[in-house]
Amino acid sequence: MDISIDIDIETLIYGIALAGVAVNAAAGVLEAGRKPFDLFGMVVVALAAALGGGSLRDVLLDRTVFWIADQSYLIAAIVAGLATFALVRVVRLPARLFLIPDAIGLALFTVSGTQAALAMEAPWLVAVLMGVITGVFGGIVRDVLCNEVPLVFSSELYATASFLGALLLVGLVAWGVSAGWAALAAGTLVLLVRLLALRLRWRLPVFIARP
Amino acid sequence: MDISIDIDIETLIYGIALAGVAVNAAAGVLEAGRKPFDLFGMVVVALAAALGGGSLRDVLLDRTVFWIADQSYLIAAIVAGLATFALVRVVRLPARLFLIPDAIGLALFTVSGTQAALAMEAPWLVAVLMGVITGVFGGIVRDVLCNEVPLVFSSELYATASFLGALLLVGLVAWGVSAGWAALAAGTLVLLVRLLALRLRWRLPVFIARP
Amino acid sequence: MDISIDIDIETLIYGIALAGVAVNAAAGVLEAGRKPFDLFGMVVVALAAALGGGSLRDVLLDRTVFWIADQSYLIAAIVAGLATFALVRVVRLPARLFLIPDAIGLALFTVSGTQAALAMEAPWLVAVLMGVITGVFGGIVRDVLCNEVPLVFSSELYATASFLGALLLVGLVAWGVSAGWAALAAGTLVLLVRLLALRLRWRLPVFIARP
Repeated sequence: MDISIDIDIETLIYGIALAGVAVNAAAGVLEAGRKPFDLFGMVVVALAAALGGGSLRDVLLDRTVFWIADQSYLIAAIVAGLATFALVRVVRLPARLFLIPDAIGLALFTVSGTQAALAMEAPWLVAVLMGVITGVFGGIVRDVLCNEVPLVFSSELYATASFLGALLLVGLVAWGVSAGWAALAAGTLVLLVRLLALRLRWRLPVFIARP
Repeated sequence: MDISIDIDIETLIYGIALAGVAVNAAAGVLEAGRKPFDLFGMVVVALAAALGGGSLRDVLLDRTVFWIADQSYLIAAIVAGLATFALVRVVRLPARLFLIPDAIGLALFTVSGTQAALAMEAPWLVAVLMGVITGVFGGIVRDVLCNEVPLVFSSELYATASFLGALLLVGLVAWGVSAGWAALAAGTLVLLVRLLALRLRWRLPVFIARP
Repeated sequence: MDISIDIDIETLIYGIALAGVAVNAAAGVLEAGRKPFDLFGMVVVALAAALGGGSLRDVLLDRTVFWIADQSYLIAAIVAGLATFALVRVVRLPARLFLIPDAIGLALFTVSGTQAALAMEAPWLVAVLMGVITGVFGGIVRDVLCNEVPLVFSSELYATASFLGALLLVGLVAWGVSAGWAALAAGTLVLLVRLLALRLRWRLPVFIARP
């Protein structure tokens, strides 16, 4: 049996990135739902949450912004945002329901962000940071727009999981592992660390505020 | 009588864009006036409100940022910000006074943002979003800098008016209508929807916060 | 004695810029320390504070972002952020301790931002604004991420000091003064104005909130 994950790697990454965008848009609507925003405000927060990280990555790397190059991402974010808005008015979704898709989104964004930077031959530390930015920046913008302290700054190993995954990806690629397997390993690591941290309430040490 | 609106269309758009920048700067100062900012903080908020939307549009589209290409916008924003600051210390301006110029600014920014994206052959949905971003992002940055929940997320059809106008503009241009008439129609639509919404207190449905 | 400051001007500016990045990262950690952020959140705030201003400048001017072109800045910010985090857990640092390095950082960033814009032949007002953006934007992002009203909007001649220095630099260069001396004079002016303002509690007039 010849497992050649590389053949469809681009299709896979594409589908995964679309799914990540949709999940982040849905999470944006849930977060915005705590504020008295109207439908449009909600869609804007959903778009910022879903596209913010990748946009910042592309602007910093001076690439064509991904959702301008390909409208599908924009459509995925809008549809997911509207669908969540409609759904939440009918069914009451527990906030925890979204933690798993959100963790998947984090894994996908981290991998795609790191890969994009590596493809442009960015230095390794920059590539890692781009992975983290792509993974967490959307959530930061979402919280800033909702006038909240960004959740990712105190959440259970959120950015840390992204950081570890990006680091693993850069390491594996430098080591000669094929892009597909490296992405799979890195994404799995992000997912595992985040889900374990959620279950076991792992947190990084929190800075003690000065009195 | 030969009405040829196209002849001076560039001059018209230029004047309109300058006026929009000035109005947004003034609105920024009024908003910042509720916070204990000094003169300079106020000018920064005015600049962010006036230039933020267009800057984000240009950075995303990878165009030269409009106020770097042409300093007039920067000067218009600074002068309008300072003049408002001086004026408000002498006369007491009712906040509602600014709703009409602000609606005009929204119309102008929406049209110029959509046109800029169309000129770069962006896909239609991206062009619409660029119109909305140019129209509303300055106000979002203004409110974030003032540590407030962005007003546009719950205001009377603010972003919605921008969205409808951008959509009309893209549709008319695709339909073969000349740029000048399309811009006029779209701008008028934004203005009408926003002013009617203000007068009749139209709002989009607001998401019900979960208990 | 032949004082030729120009010979090592690039090395000098480089070292100065690295130091400015480190100081701003440290100040970011101190500010973030008032919030219940974890280590990673703190590092993100430190990076945003240290690299935000220069990143915005580079994105607006369409230059390669400085810390992508040269990882040293990124490393300096991370190391300074982590070291401050470690230090603050052991020793209790008075907040005022950071005012002087922060003023030095402001001077360095203002000078390097203005110079970068002049090197790209930006118009004078744009160059001045780029100096101010580079000087103060990092602090604004830091405070927005911490969900605070930006300190620089009401602080003792913070942005004003940056503005005066950038103006002097542009004026001196236009007047034919060599880059090295102009930078030295402008940086000294920023530092003097800021430190004097801190000592003498100079502030710009604050806008009176409407009742």
